[in-house]
Amino acid sequence: MKYFKLIVAYEGTKYFGWQIQNNGPSIQGEMMKAGNQIFREPFTISGASRTDSGVHALGQVVLLTTSGDFPLRKVTNSFNNFLPEDIVVQSAEEVDENFHHRYHAKKKTYRYQIYNHGVALPQNRNFMHFYRKTLNVEEMNKAAQYLVGVHDFKAFCSDKTSVKDTVREIYRASVTKEGHIITFWVEGNGFLYNMVRIIMGTLIAIGVGRINAEDMQRIMASCNRQIAKETAPAKGLTLIRIDYE
Amino acid sequence: MKYFKLIVAYEGTKYFGWQIQNNGPSIQGEMMKAGNQIFREPFTISGASRTDSGVHALGQVVLLTTSGDFPLRKVTNSFNNFLPEDIVVQSAEEVDENFHHRYHAKKKTYRYQIYNHGVALPQNRNFMHFYRKTLNVEEMNKAAQYLVGVHDFKAFCSDKTSVKDTVREIYRASVTKEGHIITFWVEGNGFLYNMVRIIMGTLIAIGVGRINAEDMQRIMASCNRQIAKETAPAKGLTLIRIDYE
Repeated sequence: MKYFKLIVAYEGTKYFGWQIQNNGPSIQGEMMKAGNQIFREPFTISGASRTDSGVHALGQVVLLTTSGDFPLRKVTNSFNNFLPEDIVVQSAEEVDENFHHRYHAKKKTYRYQIYNHGVALPQNRNFMHFYRKTLNVEEMNKAAQYLVGVHDFKAFCSDKTSVKDTVREIYRASVTKEGHIITFWVEGNGFLYNMVRIIMGTLIAIGVGRINAEDMQRIMASCNRQIAKETAPAKGLTLIRIDYE
Repeated sequence: MKYFKLIVAYEGTKYFGWQIQNNGPSIQGEMMKAGNQIFREPFTISGASRTDSGVHALGQVVLLTTSGDFPLRKVTNSFNNFLPEDIVVQSAEEVDENFHHRYHAKKKTYRYQIYNHGVALPQNRNFMHFYRKTLNVEEMNKAAQYLVGVHDFKAFCSDKTSVKDTVREIYRASVTKEGHIITFWVEGNGFLYNMVRIIMGTLIAIGVGRINAEDMQRIMASCNRQIAKETAPAKGLTLIRIDYE
Protein backbone atom coordinates (compact mmCIF):
# COMPACT_ATOMS: atom_id res chain seq x y z
CA MET A 1 0.00 0.00 0.00
CA LYS A 2 1.29 3.42 -0.94
CA TYR A 3 0.02 6.88 0.01
CA PHE A 4 0.63 9.94 -2.14
CA LYS A 5 -0.22 13.55 -1.37
CA LEU A 6 -0.95 15.39 -4.61
CA ILE A 7 -1.26 19.14 -5.14
CA VAL A 8 -3.84 19.67 -7.87
CA ALA A 9 -4.77 22.84 -9.79
CA TYR A 10 -7.93 23.15 -11.83
CA GLU A 11 -10.28 25.52 -13.54
CA GLY A 12 -13.68 24.53 -12.17
CA THR A 13 -15.75 26.27 -14.85
CA LYS A 14 -17.12 23.21 -16.60
CA TYR A 15 -17.24 20.86 -13.61
CA PHE A 16 -19.98 20.10 -11.10
CA GLY A 17 -17.43 20.59 -8.34
CA TRP A 18 -14.77 18.38 -6.81
CA GLN A 19 -16.93 15.48 -5.76
CA ILE A 20 -17.86 12.63 -8.09
CA GLN A 21 -21.57 12.52 -8.93
CA ASN A 22 -24.07 11.45 -11.54
CA ASN A 23 -25.25 14.86 -12.81
CA GLY A 24 -22.13 15.69 -14.74
CA PRO A 25 -18.34 15.84 -14.83
CA SER A 26 -16.39 16.40 -11.61
CA ILE A 27 -12.71 16.85 -10.79
CA GLN A 28 -12.65 13.69 -8.68
CA GLY A 29 -14.40 11.82 -11.50
CA GLU A 30 -11.77 12.91 -14.02
CA MET A 31 -9.00 11.86 -11.62
CA MET A 32 -10.67 8.46 -11.16
CA LYS A 33 -10.81 8.06 -14.95
CA ALA A 34 -7.11 8.93 -15.21
CA GLY A 35 -6.32 6.51 -12.36
CA ASN A 36 -8.17 3.73 -14.18
CA GLN A 37 -5.78 4.21 -17.09
CA ILE A 38 -2.70 4.26 -14.83
CA PHE A 39 -3.24 1.55 -12.20
CA ARG A 40 -3.99 -2.14 -12.50
CA GLU A 41 -4.53 -2.47 -8.75
CA PRO A 42 -7.31 -0.78 -6.75
CA PHE A 43 -6.74 2.86 -5.84
CA THR A 44 -8.63 5.69 -4.10
CA ILE A 45 -8.78 9.44 -4.79
CA SER A 46 -9.92 11.76 -2.00
CA GLY A 47 -9.85 15.56 -1.87
CA ALA A 48 -9.17 17.67 1.23
CA SER A 49 -11.77 20.28 0.21
CA ARG A 50 -15.06 19.72 -1.57
CA THR A 51 -14.95 22.69 -3.88
CA ASP A 52 -18.31 23.62 -5.44
CA SER A 53 -19.32 23.73 -9.06
CA GLY A 54 -17.39 26.54 -10.80
CA VAL A 55 -14.88 27.02 -7.97
CA HIS A 56 -11.20 26.80 -8.94
CA ALA A 57 -8.10 25.52 -7.17
CA LEU A 58 -4.41 26.23 -7.32
CA GLY A 59 -3.62 23.96 -4.38
CA GLN A 60 -6.27 21.33 -3.76
CA VAL A 61 -4.72 18.49 -1.75
CA VAL A 62 -5.62 15.01 -2.94
CA LEU A 63 -4.81 11.80 -1.15
CA LEU A 64 -4.10 8.98 -3.57
CA THR A 65 -3.77 5.46 -2.19
CA THR A 66 -2.73 2.49 -4.30
CA SER A 67 -2.41 -1.13 -3.32
CA GLY A 68 0.36 -1.60 -5.86
CA ASP A 69 3.97 -0.43 -5.82
CA PHE A 70 3.71 2.58 -8.11
CA PRO A 71 6.89 4.74 -8.16
CA LEU A 72 6.56 8.33 -6.89
CA ARG A 73 8.53 9.79 -9.80
CA LYS A 74 5.84 8.62 -12.25
CA VAL A 75 2.76 9.89 -10.42
CA THR A 76 2.57 13.52 -11.64
CA ASN A 77 3.30 12.82 -15.31
CA SER A 78 1.08 9.75 -15.43
CA PHE A 79 -1.94 11.69 -14.21
CA ASN A 80 -1.21 14.71 -16.41
CA ASN A 81 -1.00 12.39 -19.40
CA PHE A 82 -4.61 11.35 -18.96
CA LEU A 83 -6.22 14.38 -17.32
CA PRO A 84 -8.00 17.05 -19.40
CA GLU A 85 -6.08 20.32 -19.76
CA ASP A 86 -8.17 22.14 -17.14
CA ILE A 87 -6.96 19.79 -14.37
CA VAL A 88 -3.22 19.47 -13.70
CA VAL A 89 -1.36 17.67 -10.90
CA GLN A 90 1.31 20.15 -9.78
CA SER A 91 3.33 17.83 -7.56
CA ALA A 92 3.27 14.56 -5.66
CA GLU A 93 4.99 13.31 -2.52
CA GLU A 94 4.83 10.03 -0.70
CA VAL A 95 3.30 10.22 2.78
CA ASP A 96 2.91 7.62 5.50
CA GLU A 97 -0.36 5.96 6.34
CA ASN A 98 -0.90 8.21 9.35
CA PHE A 99 -1.21 11.30 7.19
CA HIS A 100 -4.78 12.49 6.86
CA HIS A 101 -5.44 15.11 4.19
CA ARG A 102 -8.59 16.38 5.96
CA TYR A 103 -7.98 15.90 9.69
CA HIS A 104 -4.40 17.13 9.64
CA ALA A 105 -5.07 20.29 7.61
CA LYS A 106 -4.06 23.23 9.81
CA LYS A 107 -4.78 26.13 7.51
CA LYS A 108 -6.75 26.68 4.33
CA THR A 109 -6.30 29.77 2.18
CA TYR A 110 -8.97 31.00 -0.20
CA ARG A 111 -8.98 33.96 -2.57
CA TYR A 112 -12.06 35.63 -4.02
CA GLN A 113 -11.68 38.12 -6.86
CA ILE A 114 -14.07 40.76 -8.17
CA TYR A 115 -13.61 42.72 -11.38
CA ASN A 116 -15.04 46.04 -10.23
CA HIS A 117 -15.42 48.15 -13.34
CA GLY A 118 -18.14 49.59 -15.56
CA VAL A 119 -17.40 47.15 -18.40
CA ALA A 120 -16.50 43.45 -18.18
CA LEU A 121 -13.17 42.05 -19.35
CA PRO A 122 -13.42 38.81 -21.37
CA GLN A 123 -10.01 37.58 -20.18
CA ASN A 124 -11.14 37.16 -16.56
CA ARG A 125 -14.78 36.18 -17.08
CA ASN A 126 -14.36 32.67 -15.66
CA PHE A 127 -12.17 33.68 -12.73
CA MET A 128 -13.65 36.86 -11.32
CA HIS A 129 -17.09 38.07 -10.33
CA PHE A 130 -17.92 41.07 -12.52
CA TYR A 131 -19.47 43.85 -10.42
CA ARG A 132 -20.27 47.15 -12.06
CA LYS A 133 -20.91 49.57 -9.15
CA THR A 134 -17.83 50.90 -7.40
CA LEU A 135 -17.29 49.12 -4.09
CA ASN A 136 -15.84 50.80 -1.00
CA VAL A 137 -12.83 48.59 -0.40
CA GLU A 138 -11.82 50.32 2.83
CA GLU A 139 -15.19 49.53 4.42
CA MET A 140 -15.04 45.96 3.14
CA ASN A 141 -11.59 45.46 4.62
CA LYS A 142 -12.76 46.96 7.93
CA ALA A 143 -15.68 44.52 8.01
CA ALA A 144 -13.40 41.60 7.16
CA GLN A 145 -11.38 42.24 10.32
CA TYR A 146 -14.39 41.29 12.48
CA LEU A 147 -14.10 37.79 11.04
CA VAL A 148 -10.63 37.24 12.48
CA GLY A 149 -10.57 35.01 15.56
CA VAL A 150 -12.63 32.11 16.85
CA HIS A 151 -16.32 32.61 16.01
CA ASP A 152 -19.49 30.73 15.32
CA PHE A 153 -19.91 31.17 11.56
CA LYS A 154 -23.38 29.60 11.35
CA ALA A 155 -24.78 32.74 9.71
CA PHE A 156 -22.35 32.18 6.83
CA CYS A 157 -23.14 28.52 6.35
CA SER A 158 -25.51 27.27 3.66
CA ASP A 159 -28.76 25.84 5.04
CA LYS A 160 -28.23 22.89 2.71
CA THR A 161 -25.77 21.31 5.13
CA SER A 162 -26.43 19.97 8.61
CA VAL A 163 -22.94 20.22 10.07
CA LYS A 164 -23.06 20.42 13.90
CA ASP A 165 -19.98 22.38 14.88
CA THR A 166 -20.07 25.75 13.11
CA VAL A 167 -17.22 27.31 15.11
CA ARG A 168 -14.11 28.06 13.09
CA GLU A 169 -11.00 30.17 13.52
CA ILE A 170 -10.06 32.77 10.92
CA TYR A 171 -6.37 33.66 11.09
CA ARG A 172 -6.28 36.45 8.57
CA ALA A 173 -8.68 38.29 6.26
CA SER A 174 -8.09 41.23 3.95
CA VAL A 175 -9.77 43.09 1.10
CA THR A 176 -7.52 45.05 -1.23
CA LYS A 177 -7.83 46.66 -4.67
CA GLU A 178 -5.31 46.86 -7.48
CA GLY A 179 -6.47 48.47 -10.70
CA HIS A 180 -10.05 47.28 -11.16
CA ILE A 181 -9.48 44.01 -9.28
CA ILE A 182 -10.67 43.56 -5.70
CA THR A 183 -9.14 40.62 -3.87
CA PHE A 184 -10.47 39.04 -0.68
CA TRP A 185 -7.91 36.77 0.99
CA VAL A 186 -8.99 34.60 3.87
CA GLU A 187 -7.09 32.03 5.91
CA GLY A 188 -8.64 29.79 8.54
CA ASN A 189 -8.51 26.40 10.17
CA GLY A 190 -11.57 25.34 8.17
CA PHE A 191 -14.56 26.65 6.27
CA LEU A 192 -18.24 25.76 6.31
CA TYR A 193 -20.29 24.99 3.19
CA ASN A 194 -20.43 28.16 1.01
CA MET A 195 -18.85 30.15 3.87
CA VAL A 196 -16.37 32.18 1.80
CA ARG A 197 -19.00 32.97 -0.83
CA ILE A 198 -21.63 34.05 1.73
CA ILE A 199 -19.05 36.22 3.52
CA MET A 200 -18.11 37.68 0.14
CA GLY A 201 -21.76 38.46 -0.68
CA THR A 202 -22.05 40.19 2.68
CA LEU A 203 -18.84 42.15 2.08
CA ILE A 204 -20.23 43.27 -1.29
CA ALA A 205 -23.41 44.52 0.45
CA ILE A 206 -21.10 46.50 2.74
CA GLY A 207 -18.97 47.76 -0.14
CA VAL A 208 -21.99 49.07 -2.03
CA GLY A 209 -23.40 50.72 1.12
CA ARG A 210 -26.51 48.57 1.68
CA ILE A 211 -25.23 47.80 5.18
CA ASN A 212 -22.34 49.09 7.31
CA ALA A 213 -19.02 47.46 8.12
CA GLU A 214 -20.13 47.22 11.78
CA ASP A 215 -23.14 45.11 10.71
CA MET A 216 -20.72 42.25 10.14
CA GLN A 217 -20.62 41.69 13.92
CA ARG A 218 -24.40 41.73 14.21
CA ILE A 219 -24.78 39.29 11.30
CA MET A 220 -22.16 36.96 12.76
CA ALA A 221 -23.84 37.07 16.20
CA SER A 222 -27.27 36.26 14.69
CA CYS A 223 -26.11 32.77 13.69
CA ASN A 224 -28.86 33.05 11.08
CA ARG A 225 -28.21 32.47 7.39
CA GLN A 226 -31.18 34.71 6.52
CA ILE A 227 -29.49 37.73 8.09
CA ALA A 228 -26.31 37.32 6.03
CA LYS A 229 -26.43 38.38 2.39
CA GLU A 230 -26.45 36.60 -0.99
CA THR A 231 -23.95 33.88 -1.82
CA ALA A 232 -21.44 35.41 -4.24
CA PRO A 233 -20.95 33.56 -7.57
CA ALA A 234 -18.65 30.52 -7.53
CA LYS A 235 -16.38 31.63 -10.35
CA GLY A 236 -14.58 34.29 -8.27
CA LEU A 237 -13.38 31.73 -5.73
CA THR A 238 -10.08 29.84 -5.77
CA LEU A 239 -8.73 27.40 -3.18
CA ILE A 240 -5.14 28.63 -2.98
CA ARG A 241 -3.47 26.22 -0.58
CA ILE A 242 -3.85 23.89 2.36
CA ASP A 243 -1.14 23.83 5.01
CA TYR A 244 -0.35 20.90 7.32
CA GLU A 245 1.58 20.63 10.55
CA MET B 1 -22.56 59.79 -41.22
CA LYS B 2 -20.99 59.11 -37.83
CA TYR B 3 -17.56 57.76 -36.93
CA PHE B 4 -16.87 55.94 -33.66
CA LYS B 5 -13.55 54.73 -32.32
CA LEU B 6 -14.11 51.64 -30.17
CA ILE B 7 -11.65 49.98 -27.81
CA VAL B 8 -12.37 46.24 -27.90
CA ALA B 9 -11.08 43.43 -25.67
CA TYR B 10 -11.37 39.79 -26.58
CA GLU B 11 -10.17 36.31 -25.84
CA GLY B 12 -9.15 34.99 -29.27
CA THR B 13 -9.09 31.29 -28.30
CA LYS B 14 -12.07 30.12 -30.30
CA TYR B 15 -11.83 32.59 -33.19
CA PHE B 16 -10.09 32.40 -36.55
CA GLY B 17 -8.58 35.82 -35.84
CA TRP B 18 -9.89 39.37 -36.20
CA GLN B 19 -10.78 39.31 -39.87
CA ILE B 20 -14.08 38.04 -41.18
CA GLN B 21 -13.78 34.87 -43.25
CA ASN B 22 -15.60 31.75 -44.35
CA ASN B 23 -13.66 29.10 -42.41
CA GLY B 24 -15.08 29.91 -39.01
CA PRO B 25 -15.99 32.56 -36.45
CA SER B 26 -14.00 35.80 -36.29
CA ILE B 27 -14.07 38.85 -34.03
CA GLN B 28 -15.02 41.13 -36.91
CA GLY B 29 -17.74 38.68 -37.93
CA GLU B 30 -19.23 38.70 -34.42
CA MET B 31 -19.15 42.51 -34.38
CA MET B 32 -20.91 42.59 -37.77
CA LYS B 33 -23.57 40.26 -36.40
CA ALA B 34 -24.05 42.52 -33.38
CA GLY B 35 -24.17 45.59 -35.66
CA ASN B 36 -26.88 43.94 -37.74
CA GLN B 37 -29.01 43.73 -34.60
CA ILE B 38 -28.31 47.35 -33.64
CA PHE B 39 -28.45 49.40 -36.84
CA ARG B 40 -31.13 49.77 -39.48
CA GLU B 41 -28.82 51.79 -41.72
CA PRO B 42 -25.62 50.52 -43.35
CA PHE B 43 -22.52 50.40 -41.13
CA THR B 44 -18.89 49.28 -41.36
CA ILE B 45 -16.58 47.63 -38.84
CA SER B 46 -12.81 47.85 -39.37
CA GLY B 47 -9.99 46.84 -37.01
CA ALA B 48 -6.65 48.62 -36.66
CA SER B 49 -4.75 45.32 -36.25
CA ARG B 50 -5.49 42.00 -37.90
CA THR B 51 -4.83 39.75 -34.94
CA ASP B 52 -4.32 36.08 -35.83
CA SER B 53 -6.31 33.06 -34.77
CA GLY B 54 -5.88 32.54 -31.02
CA VAL B 55 -4.35 35.98 -30.38
CA HIS B 56 -6.04 38.11 -27.72
CA ALA B 57 -6.63 41.84 -27.32
CA LEU B 58 -7.13 44.22 -24.46
CA GLY B 59 -7.08 47.29 -26.67
CA GLN B 60 -7.93 46.54 -30.28
CA VAL B 61 -9.08 49.77 -31.97
CA VAL B 62 -12.13 49.40 -34.17
CA LEU B 63 -13.53 52.07 -36.45
CA LEU B 64 -17.30 51.92 -36.66
CA THR B 65 -19.06 54.06 -39.25
CA THR B 66 -22.82 54.40 -39.49
CA SER B 67 -24.87 56.31 -41.98
CA GLY B 68 -27.56 56.92 -39.34
CA ASP B 69 -27.59 59.20 -36.32
CA PHE B 70 -26.83 56.67 -33.58
CA PRO B 71 -26.08 58.30 -30.18
CA LEU B 72 -22.58 57.78 -28.72
CA ARG B 73 -23.89 56.98 -25.25
CA LYS B 74 -25.62 53.85 -26.58
CA VAL B 75 -22.76 52.39 -28.60
CA THR B 76 -20.88 50.40 -25.91
CA ASN B 77 -23.91 48.85 -24.23
CA SER B 78 -25.66 48.07 -27.52
CA PHE B 79 -22.71 46.07 -28.79
CA ASN B 80 -22.12 44.32 -25.46
CA ASN B 81 -25.77 43.31 -25.41
CA PHE B 82 -25.34 41.28 -28.57
CA LEU B 83 -21.69 40.23 -28.46
CA PRO B 84 -20.64 36.84 -27.00
CA GLU B 85 -18.99 37.05 -23.59
CA ASP B 86 -15.46 36.62 -24.97
CA ILE B 87 -15.68 39.92 -26.91
CA VAL B 88 -16.42 43.13 -25.00
CA VAL B 89 -16.39 46.75 -26.19
CA GLN B 90 -14.56 48.64 -23.44
CA SER B 91 -15.31 52.19 -24.58
CA ALA B 92 -16.45 54.31 -27.52
CA GLU B 93 -15.76 57.86 -28.60
CA GLU B 94 -16.93 59.87 -31.58
CA VAL B 95 -14.17 60.85 -34.01
CA ASP B 96 -14.23 63.04 -37.08
CA GLU B 97 -14.07 61.66 -40.60
CA ASN B 98 -10.35 62.47 -40.92
CA PHE B 99 -9.43 60.00 -38.22
CA HIS B 100 -7.89 56.84 -39.63
CA HIS B 101 -7.52 53.93 -37.21
CA ARG B 102 -4.68 52.36 -39.23
CA TYR B 103 -2.79 55.25 -40.84
CA HIS B 104 -2.82 57.46 -37.75
CA ALA B 105 -1.67 54.77 -35.30
CA LYS B 106 1.61 55.99 -33.81
CA LYS B 107 2.41 53.17 -31.44
CA LYS B 108 1.27 49.61 -30.92
CA THR B 109 2.01 47.68 -27.75
CA TYR B 110 2.06 43.89 -27.62
CA ARG B 111 2.69 41.52 -24.73
CA TYR B 112 3.72 37.89 -25.01
CA GLN B 113 3.62 35.66 -21.93
CA ILE B 114 5.28 32.33 -21.24
CA TYR B 115 4.52 30.09 -18.28
CA ASN B 116 8.03 28.76 -17.66
CA HIS B 117 7.66 25.93 -15.19
CA GLY B 118 7.95 22.16 -15.04
CA VAL B 119 4.19 21.66 -14.80
CA ALA B 120 1.42 23.55 -16.62
CA LEU B 121 -1.19 25.66 -14.83
CA PRO B 122 -4.78 25.19 -16.10
CA GLN B 123 -5.75 28.77 -15.21
CA ASN B 124 -3.45 30.32 -17.82
CA ARG B 125 -3.57 27.65 -20.53
CA ASN B 126 -5.32 29.89 -23.08
CA PHE B 127 -3.25 33.00 -22.35
CA MET B 128 0.33 31.85 -21.97
CA HIS B 129 2.70 29.61 -23.88
CA PHE B 130 3.68 26.75 -21.56
CA TYR B 131 7.44 26.11 -21.78
CA ARG B 132 8.98 23.53 -19.49
CA LYS B 133 12.75 24.13 -19.73
CA THR B 134 14.07 27.06 -17.72
CA LEU B 135 14.77 30.03 -19.97
CA ASN B 136 17.59 32.51 -19.38
CA VAL B 137 15.62 35.73 -19.09
CA GLU B 138 18.70 37.94 -18.82
CA GLU B 139 19.98 36.71 -22.20
CA MET B 140 16.54 37.10 -23.74
CA ASN B 141 16.27 40.68 -22.50
CA LYS B 142 19.77 41.43 -23.80
CA ALA B 143 18.79 40.09 -27.23
CA ALA B 144 15.56 42.09 -27.20
CA GLN B 145 17.55 45.33 -26.93
CA TYR B 146 19.01 44.75 -30.42
CA LEU B 147 15.48 45.13 -31.77
CA VAL B 148 15.11 48.70 -30.52
CA GLY B 149 15.46 51.33 -33.25
CA VAL B 150 14.70 51.49 -36.98
CA HIS B 151 15.46 48.16 -38.65
CA ASP B 152 14.46 45.98 -41.55
CA PHE B 153 12.47 43.20 -39.84
CA LYS B 154 12.06 41.03 -42.94
CA ALA B 155 13.64 38.05 -41.13
CA PHE B 156 10.78 38.21 -38.63
CA CYS B 157 8.01 38.42 -41.21
CA SER B 158 5.98 35.41 -42.28
CA ASP B 159 6.65 34.35 -45.88
CA LYS B 160 2.89 34.16 -46.34
CA THR B 161 2.67 37.91 -46.82
CA SER B 162 4.11 40.00 -49.66
CA VAL B 163 4.35 43.37 -47.92
CA LYS B 164 6.97 45.58 -49.60
CA ASP B 165 8.24 47.84 -46.83
CA THR B 166 9.58 45.68 -44.01
CA VAL B 167 11.28 48.52 -42.11
CA ARG B 168 9.74 49.30 -38.74
CA GLU B 169 10.75 51.19 -35.63
CA ILE B 170 10.74 49.48 -32.24
CA TYR B 171 10.57 51.99 -29.39
CA ARG B 172 10.95 49.65 -26.47
CA ALA B 173 11.41 45.92 -25.83
CA SER B 174 11.90 44.03 -22.58
CA VAL B 175 11.84 40.51 -21.22
CA THR B 176 11.21 40.10 -17.50
CA LYS B 177 10.25 37.27 -15.15
CA GLU B 178 7.96 37.29 -12.14
CA GLY B 179 7.33 33.97 -10.44
CA HIS B 180 7.07 31.44 -13.26
CA ILE B 181 5.78 33.99 -15.78
CA ILE B 182 8.05 35.49 -18.44
CA THR B 183 6.71 38.62 -20.10
CA PHE B 184 7.95 40.10 -23.37
CA TRP B 185 6.73 43.67 -23.90
CA VAL B 186 7.28 45.34 -27.22
CA GLU B 187 6.25 48.73 -28.53
CA GLY B 188 6.71 49.92 -32.09
CA ASN B 189 5.26 52.03 -34.87
CA GLY B 190 3.98 48.90 -36.58
CA PHE B 191 4.46 45.14 -36.82
CA LEU B 192 4.75 42.77 -39.77
CA TYR B 193 2.71 39.60 -40.15
CA ASN B 194 3.65 37.19 -37.28
CA MET B 195 6.52 39.51 -36.32
CA VAL B 196 6.05 39.42 -32.53
CA ARG B 197 5.59 35.64 -32.54
CA ILE B 198 8.67 35.00 -34.70
CA ILE B 199 10.74 37.34 -32.52
CA MET B 200 9.39 35.48 -29.49
CA GLY B 201 10.34 32.10 -30.97
CA THR B 202 13.83 33.46 -31.61
CA LEU B 203 14.06 34.82 -28.06
CA ILE B 204 13.06 31.38 -26.74
CA ALA B 205 15.88 29.79 -28.79
CA ILE B 206 18.22 32.30 -27.11
CA GLY B 207 16.73 31.67 -23.67
CA VAL B 208 17.24 27.92 -23.94
CA GLY B 209 20.79 28.35 -25.23
CA ARG B 210 20.39 27.10 -28.80
CA ILE B 211 21.77 30.43 -30.05
CA ASN B 212 23.33 33.46 -28.35
CA ALA B 213 21.85 36.87 -27.60
CA GLU B 214 24.29 38.39 -30.10
CA ASP B 215 22.86 36.18 -32.86
CA MET B 216 19.81 38.44 -32.84
CA GLN B 217 21.80 41.02 -34.82
CA ARG B 218 22.96 38.45 -37.35
CA ILE B 219 19.42 37.11 -37.80
CA MET B 220 18.00 40.60 -38.24
CA ALA B 221 20.71 41.48 -40.78
CA SER B 222 20.02 38.31 -42.79
CA CYS B 223 16.55 39.56 -43.77
CA ASN B 224 15.79 35.85 -44.17
CA ARG B 225 12.83 34.21 -42.47
CA GLN B 226 14.64 30.86 -42.59
CA ILE B 227 17.41 32.16 -40.33
CA ALA B 228 14.99 33.31 -37.62
CA LYS B 229 13.45 30.64 -35.39
CA GLU B 230 10.00 29.06 -34.99
CA THR B 231 6.85 31.16 -34.71
CA ALA B 232 5.77 31.02 -31.04
CA PRO B 233 2.16 29.87 -30.40
CA ALA B 234 -0.58 32.47 -30.83
CA LYS B 235 -2.15 32.04 -27.40
CA GLY B 236 0.67 33.84 -25.54
CA LEU B 237 0.13 37.04 -27.51
CA THR B 238 -2.09 39.98 -26.55
CA LEU B 239 -2.53 43.29 -28.36
CA ILE B 240 -2.42 45.65 -25.39
CA ARG B 241 -3.03 49.09 -26.90
CA ILE B 242 -2.74 51.33 -29.90
CA ASP B 243 -1.78 54.96 -29.41
CA TYR B 244 -2.62 57.81 -31.75
CA GLU B 245 -1.20 61.31 -32.17
